[in-house]
Amino acid sequence: MVEQPGRIMSVEIAEQPAVLRRILGAGAPEIRGTARTIAAKSPRFVLLAARGTSDNAALYAKYLLEIRLGLPCGLTSMSTTTAYGARPDLRDVLVVTVSQSGGSPDLVASARAAREAGAITLAVTNNADSPLAAVSEHHIDILAGPEKALPATKTYTASLLALHLLVEGLRGGDGRDAAALPDLADRILARREEVRRLAGRYRFAERMVVTSRGYGYPTAKEAALKLMETSYIPALSYSGADLLHGPLAMVDNISPVIAVVTAGRGGEALQPVLDRLRGRGADLMVVGPRARVDEASAGFVLSMEGVAEELQPILEILPLQLLAYEVAIARGQDPDHPRALAKVTETH
Amino acid sequence: MVEQPGRIMSVEIAEQPAVLRRILGAGAPEIRGTARTIAAKSPRFVLLAARGTSDNAALYAKYLLEIRLGLPCGLTSMSTTTAYGARPDLRDVLVVTVSQSGGSPDLVASARAAREAGAITLAVTNNADSPLAAVSEHHIDILAGPEKALPATKTYTASLLALHLLVEGLRGGDGRDAAALPDLADRILARREEVRRLAGRYRFAERMVVTSRGYGYPTAKEAALKLMETSYIPALSYSGADLLHGPLAMVDNISPVIAVVTAGRGGEALQPVLDRLRGRGADLMVVGPRARVDEASAGFVLSMEGVAEELQPILEILPLQLLAYEVAIARGQDPDHPRALAKVTETH
Repeated sequence: MVEQPGRIMSVEIAEQPAVLRRILGAGAPEIRGTARTIAAKSPRFVLLAARGTSDNAALYAKYLLEIRLGLPCGLTSMSTTTAYGARPDLRDVLVVTVSQSGGSPDLVASARAAREAGAITLAVTNNADSPLAAVSEHHIDILAGPEKALPATKTYTASLLALHLLVEGLRGGDGRDAAALPDLADRILARREEVRRLAGRYRFAERMVVTSRGYGYPTAKEAALKLMETSYIPALSYSGADLLHGPLAMVDNISPVIAVVTAGRGGEALQPVLDRLRGRGADLMVVGPRARVDEASAGFVLSMEGVAEELQPILEILPLQLLAYEVAIARGQDPDHPRALAKVTETH
Repeated sequence: MVEQPGRIMSVEIAEQPAVLRRILGAGAPEIRGTARTIAAKSPRFVLLAARGTSDNAALYAKYLLEIRLGLPCGLTSMSTTTAYGARPDLRDVLVVTVSQSGGSPDLVASARAAREAGAITLAVTNNADSPLAAVSEHHIDILAGPEKALPATKTYTASLLALHLLVEGLRGGDGRDAAALPDLADRILARREEVRRLAGRYRFAERMVVTSRGYGYPTAKEAALKLMETSYIPALSYSGADLLHGPLAMVDNISPVIAVVTAGRGGEALQPVLDRLRGRGADLMVVGPRARVDEASAGFVLSMEGVAEELQPILEILPLQLLAYEVAIARGQDPDHPRALAKVTETH
């Protein structure tokens, strides 16, 4: 029996609407309860700790917490604790650790140290029985079911939605806005053939740049990571602003650019960057509104009418997961068996 | 008259020991004074805002603040303020903005908003007359003199040293440890011929990975940025831990890796990553201690005896600045005239 390359990743990508429904149904009440308990402790500052795909989910949470809650946030440099033994004063600080497996030793050590230093600790994982859940005061289960493919897909969108519901809960909201997401996700994933055609553009690409701004920036980083994990294409991700501060020199007619354009203020802030890229004759593919796609070399149109900008990242990543999958297949690679990746990465 | 390619960048690289001496001499008393004033306000958290090269200097400061002072830190996602109008409560928060020119509109807007939100604001710039210095409560002048080359070099090491003296001042120290740096920098910069030979390895490289851990991580990011700005090589930088969580799949015998190995805990924490890279047969160049260089395919030996690990980043970047310069020259490119870069980048 010959196994079809990428079958596991493909199945898990397709499961996402069901996972989102599960979180909105079975998961939401518990997340709201956890949010209420945490809100009662009135954290003043939030630190987020994660690696890889989960780090991109943590970055999404950072935008939500800063914009929706006005809480200053930082992403943790874990080695300050694990290698250098830093023991900052973390009273009034909420430390959120995001990890699919909940098993990475440095995350566990980091969460334990945070709790000892007085932090309110919350683990967001796909495994309620994990060491990370055990050492943390609070736990949110992202309910994605076992993830077997090495490139994480369903645990990413599940983390985003769980973190969104958490932040809505911290604000005292009910997160009802998210109800439309599973159906919208279904519709996007049905357009796989469209993505397959787009993938042809990148079959021979030797490098890529992925850019965005605001809420779309975590999507850009996650898309770049997927492309690297599945196709080994060196894909660099930059916020549009940072791209203008240097790496733009690298973008030319041999560096295709993918821009994630949210419908909202992030997309508006990205516009000058898109104009600049067009002015350089860059090969630009846009994932976003029809008007932006029409101005670009190619694209995947997303109709986000009625979807709040902060929810759009949960949908925007879907065509880019498919793209990473299709590019890998087009290049004759097997996304289920990337070289050198282990599902639980043991960093210390 | 034919202008020699890269002459401006080359001159500014060579000025660094003199700039370091100036900061330690003329600059230090004022930095200590500023540190005392800020320490009296007892900040509980620190947010750092910067772009491009200055963002790498800000990351260095984050490690110092967390490890040396135990202050939780975050790097600012500026668009939360400038695009989304977030107005977090910043009482007890020190907001440090790092910018060579002090002129980028989004940094100015971000610093102004932070001050209005109750933050203690400090600008670290190379221009005491800049808008950023004007809107901030406190200012540190990095005294690097006019920087004309588009790839920033001397303002990077000047920012690192100024930030180091700031953190030492916040701790009530005198920063005397840094006195040896200018002479050590002189000695490293005298080894340009050695770097020129190393540059030959990368003349035809189509991608690169730069990695490190702990205090060396900002150096890895800055080295990758220099390589991109001068040679347009897609250079990806990862902390060693993040490299194992995915992008390692991209490292193979056609992706050379540069590892920045500090003499200290960061270097020790990187060791398993180096072993893994060697195991994959990666082309590995080490900037660090002799023993680590001897185990690698190539390298640049740095003798850091008597230099505290937190000071090493100020020296480690020097051979990598030279490398970026030499690789660009070897590829027939002019590092003084990278495509598409403006010295004051107007991001909003």
